[in-house]
Amino acid sequence: MAQISVPSPADFHVHLRQGKLATLVTPHVREGGFALAYVMPNLKPPITSTAQALAYKAELEAIDPTVEYLMTLYLSPDLMPEEIVKAKEAGIVGVKSYPRGVTTNSDGGIESYEMYYPVFEAMQRVDMVLNLHGEVPSDAATNTHVLNAEPQFLPHLHSLHKAFPNLRIVLEHATTRAAISAVKACGPTVACTITAHHLALTVDDWAGQSFNFCKPVAKFPDDREALREVIWEGHSRFFLGSDSAPHPAHSKATSTPTQGCAAGIYTSPILLPLVAHLLESFGALDKLDGFVSTFGRRFYRRDLGAEQTDRVVLRKVSSIVVESTYGSGEDIVVPFWAGKEIGWKIV
Amino acid sequence: MAQISVPSPADFHVHLRQGKLATLVTPHVREGGFALAYVMPNLKPPITSTAQALAYKAELEAIDPTVEYLMTLYLSPDLMPEEIVKAKEAGIVGVKSYPRGVTTNSDGGIESYEMYYPVFEAMQRVDMVLNLHGEVPSDAATNTHVLNAEPQFLPHLHSLHKAFPNLRIVLEHATTRAAISAVKACGPTVACTITAHHLALTVDDWAGQSFNFCKPVAKFPDDREALREVIWEGHSRFFLGSDSAPHPAHSKATSTPTQGCAAGIYTSPILLPLVAHLLESFGALDKLDGFVSTFGRRFYRRDLGAEQTDRVVLRKVSSIVVESTYGSGEDIVVPFWAGKEIGWKIV
Repeated sequence: MAQISVPSPADFHVHLRQGKLATLVTPHVREGGFALAYVMPNLKPPITSTAQALAYKAELEAIDPTVEYLMTLYLSPDLMPEEIVKAKEAGIVGVKSYPRGVTTNSDGGIESYEMYYPVFEAMQRVDMVLNLHGEVPSDAATNTHVLNAEPQFLPHLHSLHKAFPNLRIVLEHATTRAAISAVKACGPTVACTITAHHLALTVDDWAGQSFNFCKPVAKFPDDREALREVIWEGHSRFFLGSDSAPHPAHSKATSTPTQGCAAGIYTSPILLPLVAHLLESFGALDKLDGFVSTFGRRFYRRDLGAEQTDRVVLRKVSSIVVESTYGSGEDIVVPFWAGKEIGWKIV
Repeated sequence: MAQISVPSPADFHVHLRQGKLATLVTPHVREGGFALAYVMPNLKPPITSTAQALAYKAELEAIDPTVEYLMTLYLSPDLMPEEIVKAKEAGIVGVKSYPRGVTTNSDGGIESYEMYYPVFEAMQRVDMVLNLHGEVPSDAATNTHVLNAEPQFLPHLHSLHKAFPNLRIVLEHATTRAAISAVKACGPTVACTITAHHLALTVDDWAGQSFNFCKPVAKFPDDREALREVIWEGHSRFFLGSDSAPHPAHSKATSTPTQGCAAGIYTSPILLPLVAHLLESFGALDKLDGFVSTFGRRFYRRDLGAEQTDRVVLRKVSSIVVESTYGSGEDIVVPFWAGKEIGWKIV
């Protein structure tokens, strides 16, 4: 019976929420096969200080102490270079930038980068990672919309990399061929996360189906092909960040014309089997190790020692049907791939 | 107080459904200010014969005899040139072509046009109109998706016009700048309908909001601009076809990840005030007459005589809030613009 094992899988982009929802979803990181979670700071209120990040980390550790949580701060005008130094000393790993208004809890996001250059200088000096939500806000006057929001962001990536060549930057959840090319063209300090769901979906899948709606939206088949290709070729600056983003089921549904659905797709509880299933579908199963563990760990300097033994074993199965929901009451969440089959199972 | 009057408004593309839904929505044609409805044939089963079309017309006339119903046949391999002659004699006006699988009840749609050339020859001879749903089916292998399905269809329009230069063709519900250009480049036998909702929506409006999902999907801001421009310039081969397409509210909502929502937006009950409101928003209110009546009537040879007096009067109002639903029980339908304001009212 076919088996594969992966050394200590690491999810370099995940939303673990707060309160009751955090209690439900945090254990799903381990359930989905992952030993490390790079935790996003877009809470209400956002995580903008070292003290908040450490308190949040303690909260997550209280829920599930078996996972390593790497923390990030939310970039906003309140974030000062002094706080960067303090954060680094406290073990906080990165700072996340959200363009204003493009996704969940991003109302306090950035509008232009120049004002943050002192913060980026401090980050470069102390060696923190800048995580970019790479989209510009929609604007009909400039023909900017959800489909070209990422390509139009790429000049910002280029400028930031040029201005701060030693600053480690991650373009998060890339969805376009243009983004893959842009990251490839950068130096070794620039990497890129790719989600599981963007390896499966295209625009046709979220047209009329709000449960497949996320930001950035899934793009065209040729864009999906570019994401698959870069994994298939085993490029070491491209690795998994699931962007697993749980929302209560009622906020993913659309029941009236005046309320849009929340942006986000939830993959945590099935993540490693799902990624194996998808990589196998395009002939890249032999790149699973790199994509879900070693490439990201190397970039983030969380390499595993030679003697580490925390391997997760996947077994090939005829099929496992994904649960239709997790949780109960108000906090039901619907996973991606609900009711569909996956050919791999964590042993 | 500002008033405008429009001579006998004509909607050259509307879905009136069947059974209880037809009973609900057919009177909304008149309620929305329209005296003529060009009726789509995509029922279950589709209207493929003269006899069916006449029976359907009688059904609609029994519901509301005050509207003129122009009937169409559904293009399929069952439709023979002899039936075209019969249909023309019975007063049927057009034949509608649906590419396979792209919208509501289009499973029996066409895959390639050459096999229909004998039908088109008969149509050209007897002077019937060919109505094209101008999209090709999505296909990941060729990077064809809901956003480029219309541009990729345009070579078919060009070929058909070249092969049948005297056949009157209408490209229905154009949504892209490319389609507007393609129709403009054709001769006087090719016209184009534009819906009300495509003058308002872009892709951002249906991303995560299934009530705004229709086929063709609303495209980019620059495409919407092209639709507005061609109306603003008063081009006589571009006129209203609302594609008003009622679906029960429960089939427009998305409540599970496995069921997509029905494609269609319902504008009939508010159509003329809505179109006036939208044209006014981009400075084209003076083109209302042409867009909703005279241009389409001329192309379809339904010109009004000089003495006709069936004018609909609109009065400028501070605001009318659009109903949130029409109907009751299972047959509730949610109109476009529900809960939003319109600045014009039918007197």
